[in-house]
Amino acid sequence: MKIKVEELKTLLVQILSSKNYSQEEAEKIAEVLLYAELAGKNTQGILKLFGTEPAQDIKPQYAAKITKETDLSAVIDGGGAAGPLSAQLGADKVIEIAEEKGFGIVGVNNIFSSIGAIGFYVRKMAKRDLIGVVAANSPRSVAPAGGISPAYGTNPIAFGFPTLTHPIVFDMAASAITWYGLVRAKALGEKLPDNVAMDSEGNITTDPEAAMKGALLPFDRSHKGSGLAMVVELLAGSLTGASVVFDEGQWGATFIAISPELLIGTEKFKQSSSELVEKVKAGKAKPGAELRIPGFDAEERLKDEEIEIADEFIQQLKGKIV
Amino acid sequence: MKIKVEELKTLLVQILSSKNYSQEEAEKIAEVLLYAELAGKNTQGILKLFGTEPAQDIKPQYAAKITKETDLSAVIDGGGAAGPLSAQLGADKVIEIAEEKGFGIVGVNNIFSSIGAIGFYVRKMAKRDLIGVVAANSPRSVAPAGGISPAYGTNPIAFGFPTLTHPIVFDMAASAITWYGLVRAKALGEKLPDNVAMDSEGNITTDPEAAMKGALLPFDRSHKGSGLAMVVELLAGSLTGASVVFDEGQWGATFIAISPELLIGTEKFKQSSSELVEKVKAGKAKPGAELRIPGFDAEERLKDEEIEIADEFIQQLKGKIV
Repeated sequence: MKIKVEELKTLLVQILSSKNYSQEEAEKIAEVLLYAELAGKNTQGILKLFGTEPAQDIKPQYAAKITKETDLSAVIDGGGAAGPLSAQLGADKVIEIAEEKGFGIVGVNNIFSSIGAIGFYVRKMAKRDLIGVVAANSPRSVAPAGGISPAYGTNPIAFGFPTLTHPIVFDMAASAITWYGLVRAKALGEKLPDNVAMDSEGNITTDPEAAMKGALLPFDRSHKGSGLAMVVELLAGSLTGASVVFDEGQWGATFIAISPELLIGTEKFKQSSSELVEKVKAGKAKPGAELRIPGFDAEERLKDEEIEIADEFIQQLKGKIV
Repeated sequence: MKIKVEELKTLLVQILSSKNYSQEEAEKIAEVLLYAELAGKNTQGILKLFGTEPAQDIKPQYAAKITKETDLSAVIDGGGAAGPLSAQLGADKVIEIAEEKGFGIVGVNNIFSSIGAIGFYVRKMAKRDLIGVVAANSPRSVAPAGGISPAYGTNPIAFGFPTLTHPIVFDMAASAITWYGLVRAKALGEKLPDNVAMDSEGNITTDPEAAMKGALLPFDRSHKGSGLAMVVELLAGSLTGASVVFDEGQWGATFIAISPELLIGTEKFKQSSSELVEKVKAGKAKPGAELRIPGFDAEERLKDEEIEIADEFIQQLKGKIV
């Protein structure tokens, strides 16, 4: 059914604030989930309130706190809260620093779960005329180049850039398939696509259960994807004091914001990024394909006042209000 | 033949300082070319002194100059010099800033040619306990996702991280094959590997000449590689004031250095990055494969006092001293 975005938001906030989170915290988490739904990243949307570890049931150990601060940086201990809340704190803090100093970096450790649709945070920075970079690590599932054992998380990284019109928002995971892709295939009794995962002996497998005991391949099946996964592990894990190459541990995320004022200047940057967009779009497209700019289509959908959500989901969500 | 590295360096400096560069400038360029040779990136090594646009023949329009400076940043006009010289200035300046402030960003525009083996510059930062990022753009040769016309350069990006032992140095180009790969195949009358390039109609081709008139594919043949190429174009082109999506124009490069002191602290970072290395290396390797850490093998080779260079090359180099 079509549901008003505002109504869906109210519903999500009610669920999230019913046990472990304040109204304000629930709104911060709901904002990220709604972005995912509207931007078409729906494995990162309301699904986060379902499953074995729904966001509303994640009870923080304590309130998030800043454990280190300099003119240009902060380290935040997330207190074991749901990822999107910790990440909102990280993004807001880095924007505050970078708006004053031209640059900011914030590391968040002790995050309990995935921070969700990572594009959300760099978009927020780009809307404030900042170049944003966010990297997040997670329990190991991706094999390194040449290896069979998992080492890195699915380790997404995102980049946001302001233009004269929409923000450019590019995000990618380091793996050939998401962990959720395995969970979903297993639940539905489906096979995996070919060449996305290995079993524990290093043989390519299409069996999701065998893949869960084995490892995911890097997105490009080569050393470049493996190298990028490592870069994210270093930035989000080593640099923040979170865990690295782990099964159980602290997830971490790093937020970097750079004002174009430090180099060419904000207006000139936006003119050039817009020129880049126009030049790319003026190119020849493959038959039946479109030349899309990352983030531009989503930006249109983010204005929607209504959204299509399966009736069953709505009913189940309503049942979750305590 | 085996030649002493010091002897090769003297030879390169003689050639480079014979026309357009001072002794000091020639040494800066030679250092980058020698790194490439020793690290096994030999398309970025002494080959740069051959071909239609040898480095020693690139006559700068004027001396490089800083056109903007803040506490945290600088914009350098490269003056149309050979890329490795401009990039050395960028890397040295960013290290100077970041060692004082914990962070630095330097944009270099008006670069005449490729900056060479990009790992060199991030390694230099990592050896000073800084996390380094370098992105460089170049004339358009890579098609964007969904497209046929080239938009982005082969746009390499590199990341460097300190550890307790060797620096981690990861660098990658955004394309499935380098431009030099096309030039080489054409010169030798060889075919290209399958699925690395398109002709001007968008058909996959193994003919290097058709590919030169067409476009290279992103390294992963998908939107992720295309997105990363765009990120580099924005950082190295738009942010520095160099050209974007161009055939003839200014190449640009951006240098970012971050001290781990801003977040977890340098010693703790190095402990964690070393822990990551150990955990990755403790994993199971594929039969016949090795678990390699980017930059580690090269680090050993960089200590070599002798290097194998084809006799013919040495003779030709000696002929280039004016």
